[in-house]
Amino acid sequence: MELNLKEMGAAAVAASRFTAQSSGKDRDSLLRSMARALRDGAKGIIEANGLDLSNGRASGLSEPLLERLSLDDGRVESMAKGLEEIASLPDPLGKGDRWINDQGLEISRVKVPLGVIGMIYESRPNVTADASGLCLKAGNAVILRGGREAVNSNRAIASLLRGALKSSGFPEDSVQLLDDPGREATQALMALEDLDVLIPRGGKGLKEAVKAHAKVPVIMTGMGLCHLYVDRFANQDMAVQIAVNAKAQRPSVCNSIETLLVHSDVAPSFLPSLASAMAEAGVELRGDGRVRSLVPMACATDEDWDTEYLALILSVKMVDSLEEAIDHINRHGSGHSEAIVTEDYLASRTFLDQVDASSVYVNASTRFTDGSVFGFGAEMGISTQKIHARGPMGVEHLTTVKYRVLGSGQIRG
Amino acid sequence: MELNLKEMGAAAVAASRFTAQSSGKDRDSLLRSMARALRDGAKGIIEANGLDLSNGRASGLSEPLLERLSLDDGRVESMAKGLEEIASLPDPLGKGDRWINDQGLEISRVKVPLGVIGMIYESRPNVTADASGLCLKAGNAVILRGGREAVNSNRAIASLLRGALKSSGFPEDSVQLLDDPGREATQALMALEDLDVLIPRGGKGLKEAVKAHAKVPVIMTGMGLCHLYVDRFANQDMAVQIAVNAKAQRPSVCNSIETLLVHSDVAPSFLPSLASAMAEAGVELRGDGRVRSLVPMACATDEDWDTEYLALILSVKMVDSLEEAIDHINRHGSGHSEAIVTEDYLASRTFLDQVDASSVYVNASTRFTDGSVFGFGAEMGISTQKIHARGPMGVEHLTTVKYRVLGSGQIRG
Repeated sequence: MELNLKEMGAAAVAASRFTAQSSGKDRDSLLRSMARALRDGAKGIIEANGLDLSNGRASGLSEPLLERLSLDDGRVESMAKGLEEIASLPDPLGKGDRWINDQGLEISRVKVPLGVIGMIYESRPNVTADASGLCLKAGNAVILRGGREAVNSNRAIASLLRGALKSSGFPEDSVQLLDDPGREATQALMALEDLDVLIPRGGKGLKEAVKAHAKVPVIMTGMGLCHLYVDRFANQDMAVQIAVNAKAQRPSVCNSIETLLVHSDVAPSFLPSLASAMAEAGVELRGDGRVRSLVPMACATDEDWDTEYLALILSVKMVDSLEEAIDHINRHGSGHSEAIVTEDYLASRTFLDQVDASSVYVNASTRFTDGSVFGFGAEMGISTQKIHARGPMGVEHLTTVKYRVLGSGQIRG
Repeated sequence: MELNLKEMGAAAVAASRFTAQSSGKDRDSLLRSMARALRDGAKGIIEANGLDLSNGRASGLSEPLLERLSLDDGRVESMAKGLEEIASLPDPLGKGDRWINDQGLEISRVKVPLGVIGMIYESRPNVTADASGLCLKAGNAVILRGGREAVNSNRAIASLLRGALKSSGFPEDSVQLLDDPGREATQALMALEDLDVLIPRGGKGLKEAVKAHAKVPVIMTGMGLCHLYVDRFANQDMAVQIAVNAKAQRPSVCNSIETLLVHSDVAPSFLPSLASAMAEAGVELRGDGRVRSLVPMACATDEDWDTEYLALILSVKMVDSLEEAIDHINRHGSGHSEAIVTEDYLASRTFLDQVDASSVYVNASTRFTDGSVFGFGAEMGISTQKIHARGPMGVEHLTTVKYRVLGSGQIRG
């Protein structure tokens, strides 16, 4: 296996040298022919997906996971459309600035591809197409490591994408799928020297594995432990609506909330409305002692404040001040998306300034943190780290810079 | 020790919350009072440095290392001036852009500090002041890990900087020095969860240690295996001048060259002039077989092509084409700075396009890769990785972004 991965790495480097020199026009044509290949091959993708689904059922995958895994004509069409949308974005490469320095050197700082990108992701097979499209748009080669439960779907999709690469005159190995099922393969990818960056997309388990094994630069995405704070000057109806949306509209995604903090001044009137709306939405509440003294619910333990449920469960905690809320968020949050509901000017500014997260909201649902909602087009994921990309990570984050320096014999004195 | 580092981490986080909220004006005043503190404390710094120097002599440090380690009134004054120059740079924080998205959310993307920065560096004690100044300018807290050979100098400098922090109303722990001499302390710093980024500055040994132990996001700086390629259409006099400058003007730094590649068409006329100029500059040459058949010199082994000498040694290799030169560079280079000498238009463009490095030169010395030479002011180091910062890393690279989203009750449909 390791030898195989070494070969994949070398092939990716060679492919990346080609894609880096290709024109934006050729890369856009490539993405459009990849979209056509997916449409033409939809039947094969759906058959392969059927195999993954029946394997998944046999091995006891949960219904939400089966739902995320499943593909039909509509979802294949969405993948194809996604590639066409990426094709229509502006070319992120070649742009830059230029100046003359004191020694008369002409210096240009130009956007160039990152090179070789490793992407690790879980059940949703559409990521195979999305990530390939984004990486190629920015002139990169990519090695994909999908979840084992989607391996047949991913193989079918990757094979169609590689066919389109070949017929468009690009190296097939611009997109490679690492489909060895073993955990060792994932760990070897995390240590592959040829990667310019590794982008893992997933939860706590993946993050821990990355910490233990990664030897290459990493941009961690997909971890979301988000909060909603209901201030003492909140519009309580708005707070209930936002809370239900942020928790229940799509609980399996990283920008949904896991914990609600409520100011003790408004808890007595707010919590009963919250509880009834959440019950209606099928959400289980877990409260601290003071919350449970107002509304009966399950007991939240210390562990709850650090748990990303990704399910219809919400922990609820009472706080006595804005400062206590901010402190709880900065201590327990994953730096993804955090919201306050308030009508108070100073509270809104303090929250925006002092909460340390990629995206901080006043009077809106955390569910909006998303590349296309923010207006950037498709995304590789939401970064919760601070270097290189923070928040929604789009095509422009798959580039780096190169300084091109033109001289006429200058030496340093 | 580990407990101590945990406390240092917590103190740095607390300090970073304060510095992040401080005004640019207050941070600039702070830097100026740090400069004054260094000037007023110069005598103590130089005494402490004397202790390091005598320890270094006793333990057999080489003369170049002793030279890098040594401080006098002029060097202390340079440190102080450096802090004042950083103070005079524009504030990197608070700037951003702002738009309204389709849901009517007002989104601002604003520059904010990274948070807590860990910095690992070797012998030069001026880095203690430079790195502290850059980190504080961008509103960060920093934990410094200097070389053990400079520990007394670093303690004296850090203590003066902390005094200035205190008297300026900033938390002293905005700058902390990890001065435990053990290797375990360095490894524990590389795994400290409180760090938002670790910036190691050093050579291959440090890079390997970072690969083995780092658990936090890293920006690796200071590794330079740079080349000069003398094309068959080179101005040969210019090539000799640039080669001598790039090798010998300051061989201990990362932007000096380690290998010279020469096209076989010009090797017979070029190599004798190179050899005599290098002999005059005290440089030892190591050549491959074809080079040695033209000019007698030591024999270069395969290892030489991957060695950053940081000394007056240059390996020399003959190539038969531009493509062979580019391939050698992309295989053996560290992605730092690479130069071609040529009068040929197409060769210059091909080299600029295809060489994969932070800074690529035509007809100029690689020694120019430097934050202040490029016009960015002081630098934390030269990054040889592609994510977050590539090439000279200045104040603006010590920031990240935060999305501030203002709504009026929006939920996601």
